[in-house]
Amino acid sequence: MLYTHARLATFAAPGRYGLVEDGALAVEGERIAWAGPLAELPQAWRGQEAEDLGGRLVTPGLIDCHTHIVFGGHRADEFEMRLEGASYEEIARAGGGIGSTVRATRLASEDVLLEGALTRADALIGEGVTTLEIKSGYGLEAETELRMLRVARRIGELRPVTVRTSYLAAHAVPPEYSGRADAYIDEIVIPVMHEGRGLIDAVDGFCEGIAFDTAQIGRVFDAAASLGLPVKLHAEQLSHMGGAALAARHGALSADHLEHASAEDAAAMAAAGTVAVMLPGAYYTLRDTQAPPVQAFRDAGVPMAVATDCNPGSSPLASLLTAMNMACTLFRLTPEEALAGVTVHAAKALGLADRGTLAAGQRADLAVWDVETPAELAYRIGWNPLHARIHGGTKC
Amino acid sequence: MLYTHARLATFAAPGRYGLVEDGALAVEGERIAWAGPLAELPQAWRGQEAEDLGGRLVTPGLIDCHTHIVFGGHRADEFEMRLEGASYEEIARAGGGIGSTVRATRLASEDVLLEGALTRADALIGEGVTTLEIKSGYGLEAETELRMLRVARRIGELRPVTVRTSYLAAHAVPPEYSGRADAYIDEIVIPVMHEGRGLIDAVDGFCEGIAFDTAQIGRVFDAAASLGLPVKLHAEQLSHMGGAALAARHGALSADHLEHASAEDAAAMAAAGTVAVMLPGAYYTLRDTQAPPVQAFRDAGVPMAVATDCNPGSSPLASLLTAMNMACTLFRLTPEEALAGVTVHAAKALGLADRGTLAAGQRADLAVWDVETPAELAYRIGWNPLHARIHGGTKC
Ligand SMILES: [Zn+2]
Ligand SMILES: [Zn+2]
Repeated sequence: MLYTHARLATFAAPGRYGLVEDGALAVEGERIAWAGPLAELPQAWRGQEAEDLGGRLVTPGLIDCHTHIVFGGHRADEFEMRLEGASYEEIARAGGGIGSTVRATRLASEDVLLEGALTRADALIGEGVTTLEIKSGYGLEAETELRMLRVARRIGELRPVTVRTSYLAAHAVPPEYSGRADAYIDEIVIPVMHEGRGLIDAVDGFCEGIAFDTAQIGRVFDAAASLGLPVKLHAEQLSHMGGAALAARHGALSADHLEHASAEDAAAMAAAGTVAVMLPGAYYTLRDTQAPPVQAFRDAGVPMAVATDCNPGSSPLASLLTAMNMACTLFRLTPEEALAGVTVHAAKALGLADRGTLAAGQRADLAVWDVETPAELAYRIGWNPLHARIHGGTKC
Repeated sequence: MLYTHARLATFAAPGRYGLVEDGALAVEGERIAWAGPLAELPQAWRGQEAEDLGGRLVTPGLIDCHTHIVFGGHRADEFEMRLEGASYEEIARAGGGIGSTVRATRLASEDVLLEGALTRADALIGEGVTTLEIKSGYGLEAETELRMLRVARRIGELRPVTVRTSYLAAHAVPPEYSGRADAYIDEIVIPVMHEGRGLIDAVDGFCEGIAFDTAQIGRVFDAAASLGLPVKLHAEQLSHMGGAALAARHGALSADHLEHASAEDAAAMAAAGTVAVMLPGAYYTLRDTQAPPVQAFRDAGVPMAVATDCNPGSSPLASLLTAMNMACTLFRLTPEEALAGVTVHAAKALGLADRGTLAAGQRADLAVWDVETPAELAYRIGWNPLHARIHGGTKC
């Protein structure tokens, strides 16, 4: 297949967005065979049947590199209680917080979890997402953690999207291990990681006062290394706990949130090649006021990704385009940084070198947009200009 | 037509949302013939063919009571320049700001304006909007102001949505009247209001240091009164100029924005029956930090509406559901207040008594949602649970 008369945001050619005006892109099977200016199209492709894109923008298929879309129940009641003036104590007494999602997820069958998650996956896919990371972490016991991972895999089978799973049993201490976080890690987190091997693409954790400390996460990461699994970490969201430095020491794919990260953290992450994942949906929903140190990441050369963090509590956001707008409006990323954050840098945050740019040899994961300039993707809110979506060479 | 087994958010029955569980709703022609508990359905309707809504939520069709969706061009370049560090002066030198939209709108044909506006209208309609207010105000001279109003009317003819137009020539002083705001009002704003009579449902203005003062707006409002047209006002957005009190004195349908309004303003608006229209999309986009005095409006009994303010500069937001979430998250409205703000109170902000509630005799403008509780509509972001939409009794 040959696409012509497109503006290509390649993130591979030089210049802002790696933009190629009046470009052409040839697809063979699942791969991009050639991408560049139409005028330079190789002889072999000339005269082939082509689809004229009429000047539309083509970007790499979008990549949402941090989501929790598999869960039971929802937390609209808690959202409403808080806005009607209930205190955190009253909400906790009414069974709110992450515990309510854990209870609902444990009670939900695989099919019920799948049905709910598909509505969220479909919303993301409808905005041009072709690769989707999905975390476990609302089971906090063997059976439900594995069930969540199976549901994530099924989404990748049922929909034209590549799913990457992250095992996040180290998300919270479940009630049955209250006050015994170390025992939870030894008896559940690490054994279930071994049990779930084939279902797990990466291992994640939550390093925070309300979750696990760096020593505990360090043991989880060591277990991951023993299985040859890459790691990533929810770090420095609510306080500075040392999670970003720990992630860098372990060569993590990414450290995520990072509102309280320091310039030293940025330097360590740059040296380790660890991506900084910006999650402005949680910052917005929690009405946080400390933005992540974007300028420090720029200065140190840390690649920045942007993701929805779609989850029922702190970020009920199922729009990656809206996350891009929030990253610009709230964190002052440029539109180019926001688009790199959901393509080339998001791919890196998942350890995927075969996507996120438009270049020969890359997977043919593409999004075609009814916009004039790439900045429009981040500028508008609640408006979906997707014209077409190509996953592994197939329009769908 | 009869709909059964629905949860009805009537805003007419007592209690939160005016909620009726296991409700039924009968439609005759364009009107609601009956709405209430299924168990109380009158004999005449029993045994009729019915559509079982399976417990889905039915709300009044949503009403976006403040938009500027008709305009030429876009301002993504300006958004990008600002995020790349350009000063306001540099952006002004590059031709940015409202002036760029006025230039692009003056140059755009009626068909070009219509095509652009339809993409935004369709996004809103796709989220359950059945009544849509559209303002002029990017022409600032006779021909373009009237062209914008004609485009607004055509949207109501081409799409299943009721359009209400507001004449907003008093939006800004055009360059050709720079420093001569009074002359602009006398020579353009008021004469064109007479010329455009049949195209105008209400008269609006922008009362602000960068636009018009209360004396100037007062003359516009007097002219509107002489034509029997209701008025509304952009007031107290960036500073306290006295616009809210002026609006109340003129019995305005609404005063909009209101970040800098006072408790005295709230009392005056309550006495006048003037609705307070919350526009959180502009607050969010401009990174404003002073929220409108929501508690003062509650205390005084001022009805609060919520709208997108969809416009290319300060609120490129084409999602009324996202505006509801922003009203809750940023302004601390409750989900019930947010939903009332896009139904019953939005109708009042447009002077429409025949919609915005589910009760016998009202227009059959309905939205049917795949949600369990009404709070879900405001809780989620970037996810559209619309199941069906009924405009004047017709599913579309
Ligand atoms: Zn997360
Ligand atoms: Zn406005």
